[in-house]
Amino acid sequence: MGATGMVGQKYIALLEKHPWFDVSYLAASERSAGKSYKEAVANRWHMDKDIPANVRDLMVENARDIKKGEDCDFVFSALDSKTAKELEEKYAEVGIPVVSNASAHRHTDDVPMIIPEINPDHADIIPIQQKNRGWEKGFIVVKPNCSVQSYMAPLHALLQEGYNVEELIITTLQAVSGAGHPGVSSWDVIDNMIPYISGEEKKSELEPLKIWGKIGDGKFEYAEKPKVSAHCNRIAVLDGHTACVSVKFDKKPEKDEIIRIWRAFTAEPQRLRLPTAPEKPIIYRDEPNRPQPRLDRDVDKGMAVTCGRLRECNVFDWRFVGLSHNTVRGAAGGGILNAELLKAKGYL
Amino acid sequence: MGATGMVGQKYIALLEKHPWFDVSYLAASERSAGKSYKEAVANRWHMDKDIPANVRDLMVENARDIKKGEDCDFVFSALDSKTAKELEEKYAEVGIPVVSNASAHRHTDDVPMIIPEINPDHADIIPIQQKNRGWEKGFIVVKPNCSVQSYMAPLHALLQEGYNVEELIITTLQAVSGAGHPGVSSWDVIDNMIPYISGEEKKSELEPLKIWGKIGDGKFEYAEKPKVSAHCNRIAVLDGHTACVSVKFDKKPEKDEIIRIWRAFTAEPQRLRLPTAPEKPIIYRDEPNRPQPRLDRDVDKGMAVTCGRLRECNVFDWRFVGLSHNTVRGAAGGGILNAELLKAKGYL
Amino acid sequence: MGATGMVGQKYIALLEKHPWFDVSYLAASERSAGKSYKEAVANRWHMDKDIPANVRDLMVENARDIKKGEDCDFVFSALDSKTAKELEEKYAEVGIPVVSNASAHRHTDDVPMIIPEINPDHADIIPIQQKNRGWEKGFIVVKPNCSVQSYMAPLHALLQEGYNVEELIITTLQAVSGAGHPGVSSWDVIDNMIPYISGEEKKSELEPLKIWGKIGDGKFEYAEKPKVSAHCNRIAVLDGHTACVSVKFDKKPEKDEIIRIWRAFTAEPQRLRLPTAPEKPIIYRDEPNRPQPRLDRDVDKGMAVTCGRLRECNVFDWRFVGLSHNTVRGAAGGGILNAELLKAKGYL
Amino acid sequence: MGATGMVGQKYIALLEKHPWFDVSYLAASERSAGKSYKEAVANRWHMDKDIPANVRDLMVENARDIKKGEDCDFVFSALDSKTAKELEEKYAEVGIPVVSNASAHRHTDDVPMIIPEINPDHADIIPIQQKNRGWEKGFIVVKPNCSVQSYMAPLHALLQEGYNVEELIITTLQAVSGAGHPGVSSWDVIDNMIPYISGEEKKSELEPLKIWGKIGDGKFEYAEKPKVSAHCNRIAVLDGHTACVSVKFDKKPEKDEIIRIWRAFTAEPQRLRLPTAPEKPIIYRDEPNRPQPRLDRDVDKGMAVTCGRLRECNVFDWRFVGLSHNTVRGAAGGGILNAELLKAKGYL
Repeated sequence: MGATGMVGQKYIALLEKHPWFDVSYLAASERSAGKSYKEAVANRWHMDKDIPANVRDLMVENARDIKKGEDCDFVFSALDSKTAKELEEKYAEVGIPVVSNASAHRHTDDVPMIIPEINPDHADIIPIQQKNRGWEKGFIVVKPNCSVQSYMAPLHALLQEGYNVEELIITTLQAVSGAGHPGVSSWDVIDNMIPYISGEEKKSELEPLKIWGKIGDGKFEYAEKPKVSAHCNRIAVLDGHTACVSVKFDKKPEKDEIIRIWRAFTAEPQRLRLPTAPEKPIIYRDEPNRPQPRLDRDVDKGMAVTCGRLRECNVFDWRFVGLSHNTVRGAAGGGILNAELLKAKGYL
Repeated sequence: MGATGMVGQKYIALLEKHPWFDVSYLAASERSAGKSYKEAVANRWHMDKDIPANVRDLMVENARDIKKGEDCDFVFSALDSKTAKELEEKYAEVGIPVVSNASAHRHTDDVPMIIPEINPDHADIIPIQQKNRGWEKGFIVVKPNCSVQSYMAPLHALLQEGYNVEELIITTLQAVSGAGHPGVSSWDVIDNMIPYISGEEKKSELEPLKIWGKIGDGKFEYAEKPKVSAHCNRIAVLDGHTACVSVKFDKKPEKDEIIRIWRAFTAEPQRLRLPTAPEKPIIYRDEPNRPQPRLDRDVDKGMAVTCGRLRECNVFDWRFVGLSHNTVRGAAGGGILNAELLKAKGYL
Repeated sequence: MGATGMVGQKYIALLEKHPWFDVSYLAASERSAGKSYKEAVANRWHMDKDIPANVRDLMVENARDIKKGEDCDFVFSALDSKTAKELEEKYAEVGIPVVSNASAHRHTDDVPMIIPEINPDHADIIPIQQKNRGWEKGFIVVKPNCSVQSYMAPLHALLQEGYNVEELIITTLQAVSGAGHPGVSSWDVIDNMIPYISGEEKKSELEPLKIWGKIGDGKFEYAEKPKVSAHCNRIAVLDGHTACVSVKFDKKPEKDEIIRIWRAFTAEPQRLRLPTAPEKPIIYRDEPNRPQPRLDRDVDKGMAVTCGRLRECNVFDWRFVGLSHNTVRGAAGGGILNAELLKAKGYL
Repeated sequence: MGATGMVGQKYIALLEKHPWFDVSYLAASERSAGKSYKEAVANRWHMDKDIPANVRDLMVENARDIKKGEDCDFVFSALDSKTAKELEEKYAEVGIPVVSNASAHRHTDDVPMIIPEINPDHADIIPIQQKNRGWEKGFIVVKPNCSVQSYMAPLHALLQEGYNVEELIITTLQAVSGAGHPGVSSWDVIDNMIPYISGEEKKSELEPLKIWGKIGDGKFEYAEKPKVSAHCNRIAVLDGHTACVSVKFDKKPEKDEIIRIWRAFTAEPQRLRLPTAPEKPIIYRDEPNRPQPRLDRDVDKGMAVTCGRLRECNVFDWRFVGLSHNTVRGAAGGGILNAELLKAKGYL
């Protein structure tokens, strides 16, 4: 669903030759419905390889014709938030699990928001969600916003080793692909940057608390810490969100210890050998001027987070720079990894 | 001195038609010496208007031939730091005041580092400096790094009203002109950013403490606060450094109060009606997506700081975005304003 | 009309302090109608200075309410082509002269397409146009497309001296502002160019023939020469269209002769001292790497054409590079100059 | 040789896992000599994957220590032209064949300048070259400039079918990587383009005549046609040179015929199944807005030329747009393909 947009196209590109999943159903808005995919994206296919052969001639359905989707084992949703609100529950209701990128249900009480390296156990709420709503087979699982990906895994790796994050001040330098296509006007970013992305800072501040929360009495309880303050900026970069992070822990780890923990970090997707999982979820680079979006975003299929510039902070404990590919790890790739996790756990 | 580089060129462009100062002497490295200015900058004049007529045919001297400069009332130094270290004292020694952009003497004990809106009284150390060194007419005055300009004035305006800054976390998005020409390779910033500028973070963290310091026993005593932590990034913008600022005060001002103070702020350069002084040193814009480098850097001849997005910080008290033109307010224009201040105070 | 778009905004910026014309009426689409101009362009004012004070609070009318415009002496039209087709004649019909940027009437038989330095006498068709249509006071005058401006004046200067252009192969590198705002997606031009602008090549090939044509029997007769072939490309430049030109004359002028003719060229707007006219319509630069969009587009208020790199062509006679500011000389500034010409000739 | 520069790095990246060639010897300037490759390119490795493991710790030799290279079967030269002039003959003299990217020997009488799809038979001059110079095993083979690659193969395909090119006017829009690193300053191409690349137009005009020439009496005889006129421009694109081509044939082919010929074209590298050869050397795309550098440069390992926008020319016969990857097909990849051809033909 939402197959013709920038993230939808990335899903289709990434799912080519996927060992577990086949694209059998494409849905989009009424405007694209009834056309072959090739026609629906004519002159607006933005990937740097051609449309996969098995998808070129697939008919695009109207996402509102829910019946049409009933043969799918599950659907990925790359819908805009408003349409997602309306449709995702309907798909779940007729028995189709929805693995979503949309923000509509990120803070719905019984919907898990999963980064598989961090909170794979949040999938345990699925039976509760189904019971709450009277759904038998369908359910909704979401992933968080692209802007949080570049620092959540590195901080989680430390948290797991007993270093709890107390305070976090983050400034992001975000790529234009985050706004889709046509998205950001060239007029606005040539010789310019924009110190504002609508809604992005709130998402960056609130989502970590759910991800680090736990399943309480039939719904999620948010973590109380850390306090997060985010400055989100748009810059003239195609792909790859960079975050400058200052962090205060309850107890301050040593520099060597942090780097050791990052480099050793593996989690559920690695243990389960999920096909899209990066071999090493966190790459730490020693060069003083890395990570850089163009050089580091594609590492390990665009699924790893690259960190660098770990140095003491004059105000908090540590500073570092984190980077992740916003339409792969932060969008389509993250959605696919969620689906793989759910498949491995038996939900799909 | 340093007349052929990017900042030197900006000085020459800004001094065209200056009511008080005439360019009568140009010095650069040996490579340019003996050529007319026009020849010396052939194929590397980077300003968007032509070389001023009165400078085109002026002979460029070797900056090391100090005698050649003796007819000047004073010199601007846009030398690189290493050469500045070597030459600025020699010029001062022979009686030529030096108004410098270079970092060489920024932390020299008896050299004032001045932003005229903030610490014009630091010029009072000049007689002490002269006495310390046995100089009669010459002296050295410096300006701080371009990266601190976009938040120092706004914070100082609040400090003056009794809101003392305790902690400061800053992320800058800096323009390529800050590195001069050829400076940053196009390969490094097309579809990319660089999360590192050599030496820049230390400058951003230490210089505010001297600017907010005071003259003690024949030398500067640095302020003890605020604690400053800076992340400095290079992005694909020509001119204009942007800073995302999170700040903690000893007591938290109201939002309206801050904006009122900023909009009302004037200081010594405005009172003295210095020709290069901006009418309003701080512009606050209400639009949610401003300031932006291309739209705001040139306001009031490139000498004002533009602020926006004042909003509460979840970790500290307030967040805002500040922007200033790095080669005008942050370099040549700031140097000229310093010279105007010194002239008005009778030192030149 | 079309006051809120990119070209409309440029008109408003350029007309601030115009000695002859005052902005008294603003019209746009229904969406903006009834709002103050300030509100109508909130968060999409793209100029680098603020909205002129006298326009900020002016009410934007619905361009379809033609009656509302009846107090104007004339209107500028920056409408899109389809709306222009529909509305420009209606304004003319009720007695309001229309000075248009739109392409709708560029090839209408009795509508002059004017570059004031080239074919000011084409205004002589106005009485014929009025007679043809039974209009008393109203009429329509248009300007050609922005892409032809950078080579028409230089070629015309030579043509006037007896060097007739036979064949012309042109490649343009056009700025993103030519597509308005949001116009070209940032995704499409970061680390990229687009070798296609819809409709642009045909315009570039046909419009010169009308401009160099003459008034025949109540309508324009197109020139038979030159044959023109255009390649139009979009690149990541904000403003300023560059053209690489190869030209064959009936007899080949000498290089010195060409440069002499260009530098000496003046025409009707200069003789009439029109306020927006550039002092010298053609600037020739000797540097091997000029003109460049950012360095040369703003020369003489953005109204001059800058040429460079005149050198022999191995296939035709001569090659050169021409550059003009597409939203000033090529759009709003060109429209204003047309209006000034019409005013000076007594039509307004 | 020249292993540390932009093209040298591209060679090393492309030769990783090459089925026929192993990198066993690295040479560069004195500055890098004696360091491991990893150290020699520290902080200036510009590829988007890491240094291949087998090269990281290889010692970089001083290219002037020719003895050090004697164990190589042959060397690739990515030296700058001046050093190439001096050193390439010396390597050949001691028996080491040189496959060069440099321009030094492109117009040397008995040195072949090869594009394997066009003039593989020019390798036949090697024994003559060796005889002329008294070399036993060594020889020099060069490749042409990157700027001609995007139209030579398409024109050659037509020429082979009996459509001889008479006249050719070309405008290139060239990527910054063509100038190496640091190469083009970011200041010069952000919101700008440069209508000049030193020496490039002459290369583009003369090299095709040698490539389409033939071996005469012990040396190359240049083709007499076509007449070529080139305009070369630098734009803000990382990789991929685009050419806008207007071409006149002795007899004009039909549009369908041209496209058919292009799509069917294969040549010696395809027949010999050279590992780096593209499957189809010419890709024709039907979309109106292709080729585009970012979308098409990497097709078939960056070795294919992509064409589009074939349309009639008002002045000549046909117009089209051609694109090729300047550091792959136009530099390192082209050099490797030359070496593969020489190997297959028994010269290496």
